[in-house]
Amino acid sequence: MPEPRGERSRIAALIAGLPQGVRVVLGPGDDAAVLRPRDGYDLVVTTDTFVEGRHFLRELVTPAEAGARLALANLSDLAAMAAEPRWALVSLVVPAAWNAADCESLEHACARALAAEGAVVVGGNLASGGGPFVATLTLLGEVACARAWTRSAARAGDMLAVSGVPGSAAAALALALSNTPPSWSRVPEALQRAYVAPACRMRLARELATAGGVRAAIDLSDGLAGDLARLCEASGVGARLDAARLPASEALRHAARSLSALVGRSRPPQDVGRQPPDESALLAQLQLSTSDDYELLLAVDPAAWARCAALAEASGAPLAAIGEVTAAPGLRLRDADGAERALEGGGWDHFPAPE
Amino acid sequence: MPEPRGERSRIAALIAGLPQGVRVVLGPGDDAAVLRPRDGYDLVVTTDTFVEGRHFLRELVTPAEAGARLALANLSDLAAMAAEPRWALVSLVVPAAWNAADCESLEHACARALAAEGAVVVGGNLASGGGPFVATLTLLGEVACARAWTRSAARAGDMLAVSGVPGSAAAALALALSNTPPSWSRVPEALQRAYVAPACRMRLARELATAGGVRAAIDLSDGLAGDLARLCEASGVGARLDAARLPASEALRHAARSLSALVGRSRPPQDVGRQPPDESALLAQLQLSTSDDYELLLAVDPAAWARCAALAEASGAPLAAIGEVTAAPGLRLRDADGAERALEGGGWDHFPAPE
Repeated sequence: MPEPRGERSRIAALIAGLPQGVRVVLGPGDDAAVLRPRDGYDLVVTTDTFVEGRHFLRELVTPAEAGARLALANLSDLAAMAAEPRWALVSLVVPAAWNAADCESLEHACARALAAEGAVVVGGNLASGGGPFVATLTLLGEVACARAWTRSAARAGDMLAVSGVPGSAAAALALALSNTPPSWSRVPEALQRAYVAPACRMRLARELATAGGVRAAIDLSDGLAGDLARLCEASGVGARLDAARLPASEALRHAARSLSALVGRSRPPQDVGRQPPDESALLAQLQLSTSDDYELLLAVDPAAWARCAALAEASGAPLAAIGEVTAAPGLRLRDADGAERALEGGGWDHFPAPE
Repeated sequence: MPEPRGERSRIAALIAGLPQGVRVVLGPGDDAAVLRPRDGYDLVVTTDTFVEGRHFLRELVTPAEAGARLALANLSDLAAMAAEPRWALVSLVVPAAWNAADCESLEHACARALAAEGAVVVGGNLASGGGPFVATLTLLGEVACARAWTRSAARAGDMLAVSGVPGSAAAALALALSNTPPSWSRVPEALQRAYVAPACRMRLARELATAGGVRAAIDLSDGLAGDLARLCEASGVGARLDAARLPASEALRHAARSLSALVGRSRPPQDVGRQPPDESALLAQLQLSTSDDYELLLAVDPAAWARCAALAEASGAPLAAIGEVTAAPGLRLRDADGAERALEGGGWDHFPAPE
């Protein structure tokens, strides 16, 4: 078997043929699994792992920030299922370079971030390891029976909406990595915050779930285009995004300008004289490509959109309509001038297939 | 703060001051946590991590064997809570040296071992990592409300009983590591099996739980003396073990002889001429010290002992009475001649304090 294959096909092979369980409403493949231990009672469970050097760099994130962000990553999965977080387990694999105070700082910050949303740490594991620091959080939550938001119920005609400003985390990281050594120097504070301490969308999810109207949801951990592609695939639909409606903060535009200039300066000699990369193309790339934003992407019943938008505004969470679900499969992007082009659903791949 | 400290004090510091949760019957510190999502319904949750090079060596264990053993380690925690395993999440951190087939082999073997006891994999995580392979399993189970076996309810006068032959796993590993390179060559098959594919004690736990009489339980993942010390500490009691009643198979005695000869041969020159290490002392060390046996250590109401012993015999699981719980704290070992000595509650420490 050729190695490596892409991450998604590796996951598909991992879960292929797994024994099927009773009282499993939703198995592997969504933001979280949904269990029904007893009639009328649904339990939601998710897990996420941060590996030092892959998911965070010590130069950019303190142990406490990494712990809070790990909590946020798992909370985001539960928010995308409209579930209430309840209980968590924290497993650490600790190399010699991490001292006890670092570990405590990470775990306690993680526990505080969970507690802010109503969840507590009830167990875990501590092991020493010779490689990078690894932290795995498993989070259990509850949802009203059969009311979990899945990825698979979007319908043609649904509005597509996204919270926050997707791409901000990727922009922050790209700017930080352009410093030697990596640092937050000259990175707009709003972007740094989006990366280090992203907003928790649990409250938004809670209010929208109560109001009704959300048909499908996914949290953005791989980037808008990639996660939208997964939602569409699970629902058997396509989507059309409006470039002009994609959220863009002043900080994100600033990052697109800075990165455009950086890419221009670092072009190889044979490219000098050609056009430097277009700032608006870089902005679109930031908005759509790989980014760990932990924002919510929702497919919303158009009849409920006004109510959802008003709720989001009242709760202080930015929520933007960015396009609509289509019956035709595939992703398309409509430019400001109305021209449409196909969009690749990429996203971060831990195991990229060879070119 | 001096580094490193012992594993137990590091865990204590990690969980110190964690926010307390509602509907948590038992938080960190036992084989698993007990949650009560709804009145009358108890959920049990545990997690365990295997790090390549620490918890298993590729030379000695195939990926499939490692996966089944990871399942067993978590099943053992639930057996020690008298809980029925139900749902699991598998998180893998995969270095380049592990190909896709290795990972699938591990995950599928893990899932099969879980399925044999009624549990299914409902989710997980896959990440690439630059260090050793890391697999974390989180296992959820159910138990009749308020009927979970904990570590903390042993009483003076209880019988102490243990399943299987503790020390077999440690003996197997020590013999395998005495080969260069490590291998199962010249390791008795019963010992190899105890290490690679330990027996699952779920059925024994199930039958004993139904019959009643078990007051406290812990699974042996650190060694008999160490895990007994934890049970006693949690219960506020002590214990006296009878050396003559500790289970010892022919294979374990053989290992004690072989290891005694090995230690004798490897003594430094200034020790030559002195007595080689005593075979019976090595046997006791194997029986009591660090060993990943995944057996059950139980404190049993003496009035129920005959019934429990009969049930164990009928279910084919060896269960031996090895001593009793005492009101006086501390562990003591009674030798065959009736002499008593204090016993250290050691066990494997991922973060040993400096000598």
